Amino acid sequence: MKHFGDKVEDLNIAYIGGGSRGWAWKLMRDLAMEKSLCGEVRLYDIDKQAAMNNAKIGNNIQSDYSDATPWNYVCKETLKDALEGTDFVIISILPGTFDEMDSDVHLPEKYGIYQAVGDTTGPGGVVRAMRTIPMFVEIAEAIKKYCPNAWVINYTNPMSVCVNTLYKVFPQIKAFGCCHEVFGTQKVLLNMLQQAEGYKAAKRSDIKVNVLGINHFTWIDKAYYKLENLFPMYEKLSSQYYETGLELSDEEGSWETNNFKSCQRVKFDLFKRYGVMAAAGDRHLAEFCNGSWYLKNPETVKDWKFRLTTVDWRKKDLKERLEKAEQLMNGQEKLPMEETGEEGILQIKALLGLGELLTNVNTPNVGQIPNIPLGVVVETNAHFSEAGVVLVMAGKVPDNVYGIMAQSVQNQIVVTEAGLKKDLGLAFTAFVNDPLVHISLGDSKKLFKDMIHNTSKYLEGFHF
Amino acid sequence: MKHFGDKVEDLNIAYIGGGSRGWAWKLMRDLAMEKSLCGEVRLYDIDKQAAMNNAKIGNNIQSDYSDATPWNYVCKETLKDALEGTDFVIISILPGTFDEMDSDVHLPEKYGIYQAVGDTTGPGGVVRAMRTIPMFVEIAEAIKKYCPNAWVINYTNPMSVCVNTLYKVFPQIKAFGCCHEVFGTQKVLLNMLQQAEGYKAAKRSDIKVNVLGINHFTWIDKAYYKLENLFPMYEKLSSQYYETGLELSDEEGSWETNNFKSCQRVKFDLFKRYGVMAAAGDRHLAEFCNGSWYLKNPETVKDWKFRLTTVDWRKKDLKERLEKAEQLMNGQEKLPMEETGEEGILQIKALLGLGELLTNVNTPNVGQIPNIPLGVVVETNAHFSEAGVVLVMAGKVPDNVYGIMAQSVQNQIVVTEAGLKKDLGLAFTAFVNDPLVHISLGDSKKLFKDMIHNTSKYLEGFHF
Amino acid sequence: MKHFGDKVEDLNIAYIGGGSRGWAWKLMRDLAMEKSLCGEVRLYDIDKQAAMNNAKIGNNIQSDYSDATPWNYVCKETLKDALEGTDFVIISILPGTFDEMDSDVHLPEKYGIYQAVGDTTGPGGVVRAMRTIPMFVEIAEAIKKYCPNAWVINYTNPMSVCVNTLYKVFPQIKAFGCCHEVFGTQKVLLNMLQQAEGYKAAKRSDIKVNVLGINHFTWIDKAYYKLENLFPMYEKLSSQYYETGLELSDEEGSWETNNFKSCQRVKFDLFKRYGVMAAAGDRHLAEFCNGSWYLKNPETVKDWKFRLTTVDWRKKDLKERLEKAEQLMNGQEKLPMEETGEEGILQIKALLGLGELLTNVNTPNVGQIPNIPLGVVVETNAHFSEAGVVLVMAGKVPDNVYGIMAQSVQNQIVVTEAGLKKDLGLAFTAFVNDPLVHISLGDSKKLFKDMIHNTSKYLEGFHF
Amino acid sequence: MKHFGDKVEDLNIAYIGGGSRGWAWKLMRDLAMEKSLCGEVRLYDIDKQAAMNNAKIGNNIQSDYSDATPWNYVCKETLKDALEGTDFVIISILPGTFDEMDSDVHLPEKYGIYQAVGDTTGPGGVVRAMRTIPMFVEIAEAIKKYCPNAWVINYTNPMSVCVNTLYKVFPQIKAFGCCHEVFGTQKVLLNMLQQAEGYKAAKRSDIKVNVLGINHFTWIDKAYYKLENLFPMYEKLSSQYYETGLELSDEEGSWETNNFKSCQRVKFDLFKRYGVMAAAGDRHLAEFCNGSWYLKNPETVKDWKFRLTTVDWRKKDLKERLEKAEQLMNGQEKLPMEETGEEGILQIKALLGLGELLTNVNTPNVGQIPNIPLGVVVETNAHFSEAGVVLVMAGKVPDNVYGIMAQSVQNQIVVTEAGLKKDLGLAFTAFVNDPLVHISLGDSKKLFKDMIHNTSKYLEGFHF
Repeated sequence: MKHFGDKVEDLNIAYIGGGSRGWAWKLMRDLAMEKSLCGEVRLYDIDKQAAMNNAKIGNNIQSDYSDATPWNYVCKETLKDALEGTDFVIISILPGTFDEMDSDVHLPEKYGIYQAVGDTTGPGGVVRAMRTIPMFVEIAEAIKKYCPNAWVINYTNPMSVCVNTLYKVFPQIKAFGCCHEVFGTQKVLLNMLQQAEGYKAAKRSDIKVNVLGINHFTWIDKAYYKLENLFPMYEKLSSQYYETGLELSDEEGSWETNNFKSCQRVKFDLFKRYGVMAAAGDRHLAEFCNGSWYLKNPETVKDWKFRLTTVDWRKKDLKERLEKAEQLMNGQEKLPMEETGEEGILQIKALLGLGELLTNVNTPNVGQIPNIPLGVVVETNAHFSEAGVVLVMAGKVPDNVYGIMAQSVQNQIVVTEAGLKKDLGLAFTAFVNDPLVHISLGDSKKLFKDMIHNTSKYLEGFHF
Repeated sequence: MKHFGDKVEDLNIAYIGGGSRGWAWKLMRDLAMEKSLCGEVRLYDIDKQAAMNNAKIGNNIQSDYSDATPWNYVCKETLKDALEGTDFVIISILPGTFDEMDSDVHLPEKYGIYQAVGDTTGPGGVVRAMRTIPMFVEIAEAIKKYCPNAWVINYTNPMSVCVNTLYKVFPQIKAFGCCHEVFGTQKVLLNMLQQAEGYKAAKRSDIKVNVLGINHFTWIDKAYYKLENLFPMYEKLSSQYYETGLELSDEEGSWETNNFKSCQRVKFDLFKRYGVMAAAGDRHLAEFCNGSWYLKNPETVKDWKFRLTTVDWRKKDLKERLEKAEQLMNGQEKLPMEETGEEGILQIKALLGLGELLTNVNTPNVGQIPNIPLGVVVETNAHFSEAGVVLVMAGKVPDNVYGIMAQSVQNQIVVTEAGLKKDLGLAFTAFVNDPLVHISLGDSKKLFKDMIHNTSKYLEGFHF
Repeated sequence: MKHFGDKVEDLNIAYIGGGSRGWAWKLMRDLAMEKSLCGEVRLYDIDKQAAMNNAKIGNNIQSDYSDATPWNYVCKETLKDALEGTDFVIISILPGTFDEMDSDVHLPEKYGIYQAVGDTTGPGGVVRAMRTIPMFVEIAEAIKKYCPNAWVINYTNPMSVCVNTLYKVFPQIKAFGCCHEVFGTQKVLLNMLQQAEGYKAAKRSDIKVNVLGINHFTWIDKAYYKLENLFPMYEKLSSQYYETGLELSDEEGSWETNNFKSCQRVKFDLFKRYGVMAAAGDRHLAEFCNGSWYLKNPETVKDWKFRLTTVDWRKKDLKERLEKAEQLMNGQEKLPMEETGEEGILQIKALLGLGELLTNVNTPNVGQIPNIPLGVVVETNAHFSEAGVVLVMAGKVPDNVYGIMAQSVQNQIVVTEAGLKKDLGLAFTAFVNDPLVHISLGDSKKLFKDMIHNTSKYLEGFHF
Repeated sequence: MKHFGDKVEDLNIAYIGGGSRGWAWKLMRDLAMEKSLCGEVRLYDIDKQAAMNNAKIGNNIQSDYSDATPWNYVCKETLKDALEGTDFVIISILPGTFDEMDSDVHLPEKYGIYQAVGDTTGPGGVVRAMRTIPMFVEIAEAIKKYCPNAWVINYTNPMSVCVNTLYKVFPQIKAFGCCHEVFGTQKVLLNMLQQAEGYKAAKRSDIKVNVLGINHFTWIDKAYYKLENLFPMYEKLSSQYYETGLELSDEEGSWETNNFKSCQRVKFDLFKRYGVMAAAGDRHLAEFCNGSWYLKNPETVKDWKFRLTTVDWRKKDLKERLEKAEQLMNGQEKLPMEETGEEGILQIKALLGLGELLTNVNTPNVGQIPNIPLGVVVETNAHFSEAGVVLVMAGKVPDNVYGIMAQSVQNQIVVTEAGLKKDLGLAFTAFVNDPLVHISLGDSKKLFKDMIHNTSKYLEGFHF
């Protein structure tokens, strides 16, 4: 890497995973449009063909757009090759395949346990964590060995457990986890402002929020637009739309067809309960709460106006993305050169001294949330600059809100420890504690064993 | 009070409440048989007649037993009269009447919420706390004013909230809460030993345990009998009796008839889950867990072999005790001069320098359990001597166990704050967080309002 | 206050004290040149004439410079009048007069105790704190009553004790303390860069540092210029100039004539000891260390190339400033319209949503420095925006550095408590603990009593 | 080990070191007179002859006293042989010889630094720690390997650093450090009582104290005799004897001839300063305070009526003890069968379930002193029983007292880390921070290097 004050050349980014996900293409687009950076992106995926395809797609940009910033995409054979001497590491893997995820998400339905996502918490989250942790142990050890000073950005779920594992294996790692869910709530606030008299011109960047919680169960306890406290306005909004819900028009389709849309009814219900804003999508929020609240059965889910994302849909969606990859590779389609709205590039630039940034990240708690145990991975704001990722004091989670979070916080601790020790007995104590697992100890054991069985090829060395 | 090295004369004990409860009579018996103490007991009850009756019963002992230690029982008109200059204060009140308790315990059943006791946690515990806190505010202020250096022993439920209130109002108070539930588990251990080869002679006092948790949801993570670790033996026991349950023979009746008996099935189930011993009666333990585990419906309760104590039974039982009081007063019946097995006297003696004691108490956490927030009232061992009640370091609650405790810990914080601020809106946030409240927000609000209405005459100045 | 997105009108600033100090004039200059703010400044000083003079000087700007931003300066009779409804409060008082300060600084010299400043720590700091705390109690109570939501900026010394007092009296206060000393060290770093090959163009704002410690005994454990770690360069610098010292040329005179200049020898010596940068002027740093290191006697001070600021000089300097005030008032002289380099205006603008800022402030520790007790006023970076002053996690003070800081941290706690309780006996325990007080208990008592006597007219209600 | 309820046979004790110290003989006497224990003592010393001599002396007891409890003393060749399968480990080594100690204690005198003991803190303590830590690393590793469940009792100085090292190397170790110094203060209290009207019969065991601090700088903030608060009596005592001092008559000689006696003047001076009782001998207390208070020069020491223990005296004393060992070995002299007053046996018995005990120990802080950092080895009370060493909550060190302790607490952290990392540069930062080191950085460096040179044969692998 060479630094010229307002420009960095020869930057080196290692991209782990991402072979089959659209997110890699978004990064490529952002890099191509960014004028202050250039260099090399090393792609590594256990599915080597996927990485090779992505390299081809990345390099196609140069031929397609003559004014694109020159980046060199190379596919690497080993983690070592990808990591050695790199400046940034991006981790965006799918732990296992959608077959394992099918079991995670849908097997519990046999016992009346419904999960809207199933990749973070709930029975699916616990089991997914088991197969993910060994992968992150391997990655963390490689980073420690080959690029201990690199910045590491994780996008993989279960986010908290992944980041926790990185730090447990290599405490000096410079890692943080990034997630979009908080932005969604900021968009709701923005929409609210733009609908109101006199705030038409509001931009998302003008909304200042204090973020605190754990990934996908995050809260906003302060929100300002130009010195205006947004809570009274939000209170009105949540009352007005409590029953009907509020669907944002900026995304495709309706909540009944688009898996990722909701009507904010869960958010508004939580606001009515606690007076603070829940800052994640409804499907994620629902999974952390008492199972009887929003996920009792498919009818309840429908009442709350969000959808249970099926893995069948994910498989279909993946197939479409793979077809699209084919098109992009052979030049039948081009990546569009439009803003993606992602923050990844802004974070990288800030860490290189090219513009400061205050945004939310997932990192181990060092006291920024005083009433969550130290070491637990929490989501709070941080200030990005060449001095690094400096966490800000987010303050206490309100005591009543922590009442419904605490179980999940403890489960993060127990699940991470269980994965590191490969101790399924310990993992099971987290499994039965999960707010969604309302079934008997006997049934829980049966379900857990079946789910573990379905993912067992990733659990070498695990024991009860 | 006059101290003579191995004897204390002119001791002064204020007894608040207890007018209608058998526990006061047990104290009278213990005092009468104790040779190293004598003095005066001042009885105060808002039901003055009840206090007068108890004074009469206490003074009858002298006439009935010529060798009884002389104690003078007097009935006092005001808290001030009872407290001024006293050495010890015992608080054992019934907050409200059984009519309010009827609503606390049974109204939630309309919504399918079953409570085995309903005086500690669950919807009943929250509402009972609301009417109890103002009473403890009054008592704490009176203690601060009239006897700031007295030792204060609380027996009232909800224990944690009561003790918490005392300390919030008067932080320098020398108070602690006492509860029998841990002894019950020690009795199970004792029974286990006595049934085993080579341990016939075991006594309860030889069993050393480390106690940690919150009242009625307390745990034992270490248990020894003469250097023998009792965990392996207990593991066998809990497997052997997991299905059938284990009923101790030292108490009257069976679990099907005796409201206070159980078969330890909940205890054994929790041991199977977490590997530590739950140290309270099954009826109490069940109320702190996920509602679907042990209290789903009356059939589930029956399967787990314990009973839901009805308030009708309590009313009947009270009637019998009042009749007995009549008998004791007019001399038709005598209090038996037999050991009660209570620790109250031992604690008082230890604090007077007449024999050290290590036993469990409820006090605000000052770090004795490092992973429970400071200030929360917890149950741990303490060393009693003339140097006071010195808490011992109990250590961390295991992370997976804290997973099911944390919600109740947070609720203690919120409920206490709500009671002190008379803020029913805040109390409601604890109410909906309770693990037993699995109903919708709308139903919860309706139930809460009805329950509050039924206890409203004790809630002067409260607001939503 | 009216907010127009990029401009604020009718802003209201209360200025407490400052009657005789040049700092008020700097603020006037900055306000006059600032285009995005306008409004009223209310001046209040116990020396009413001084406030009136300043109002006149402030209002003269309008006549002198037609393009100056219009600000209205008014003199207020009471604290209430100054504070009611204000948006910002600036506190910049002289606690007592230079006569009391004369005793604080010079009386200890009779016992061989030398102080370079005497307003922060050392015997002078302790005694000054005693007379200052009651003044800050009064101010805090008035703010609580008349403008509880105003931002409060303190410039008065002893900084830590003053800010601590504000929060002890009114815990919800939105106050922070500002101090220039850290900038001085940043200037040393800037100078170092500008002398080096290839860094000529460096600006202070490009130097990013992590600040941690207590006011006037602050440290920098990370320093970057455009990704370059400045520690190796600083290590060379400190070795090169260890003996001779390094005098910056940007200030008037030499360290032998200018009371506020030094040659960084103390800074370099501390760097050699601990490997972190001390971030305050040498005269301040010296006072916190073992008395035998830098302040043994005037010769030692000379060896370390800094000066003991005498109160005689301060009196002379004040006289000159008063004469200048006279000139400014009657128009014989004009305030120059040049940048002052102060950050006050930038902070105010950031809090009004007119540009974010990361800078160092003095606030109670809420965990931003994990190894300093909670509640102690510490100096760390904070992020300023319309969302408020958000502290950043500064991290631990290195254990060996905390070894020489801890005594002063404890003294801050004890001195504040003593001042609030008006307990001179308690204050004395801090006095004898001060690293500069190397004399016997008897002599210490004598000195303390004499110093207290000299300031006694400000100590109403204090007792031993 | 075999346990019979009230008796333990085949107990196994490993004694590391102690070859040349009288303390081993005291243990032998106590074991010989103890009826509830018997077994084997394995002696291990790097000076094998010393261990052999002690084994002989121990076994002589059987022949000398027919009613002595039978213990078998054996000399072991290796740490492994001594530790394998043992129940208790006692560590009582001399780190290095008196030649190294000569340098520790007396070399600093060249720079005007006087140490009364020189084995705990001060320059001597720091350097002694450097050579001791590697020895304790070796012992801790051997315990981890050969007897991880054994109880480990340390008597070696520097106590805090030794115990800290044991836990750093093997965090699960069951170790604690024992020291007599607190008993000395209890003797002063006892003496005070026995001189007073009406307390003639007082016994030491009736005095209940709360102990808190670090070894040799320990404090008592509560002291009771039969409910009587002893502070008012002690205040009178310390005033009465402040100038003259108070010499207890129960020990041989006067403070002018007996190295271990003092006149409590330092204790009384500290009581006057802080209002809490210092609980160690004056010679130890003095070393932790500002060097100018009690150890300015030999005259000051004399004024305070204690002595600087010279290493010449120690050498002479050792010679006498070796001669005595000769006599004991060849039967010319017998160990007397009288009570030693030591607590070691009581502690061992309590841990074996043969009688509970509350006494003071040195262990890592797990929160028993909330305002000392976690992990620092502190001295507090603990409850001994078959359930183990259960620490009691000692509470906060008063803030003003912590003001003079904090530097030594931080030095314990830094010195231990430096020894474990073999980093003399880091150790030097503690050295210069020591309250006794009032000399310049240059002189400090010279002194440190010379002292390190003199002990270098024990510092294999250390580096600057």
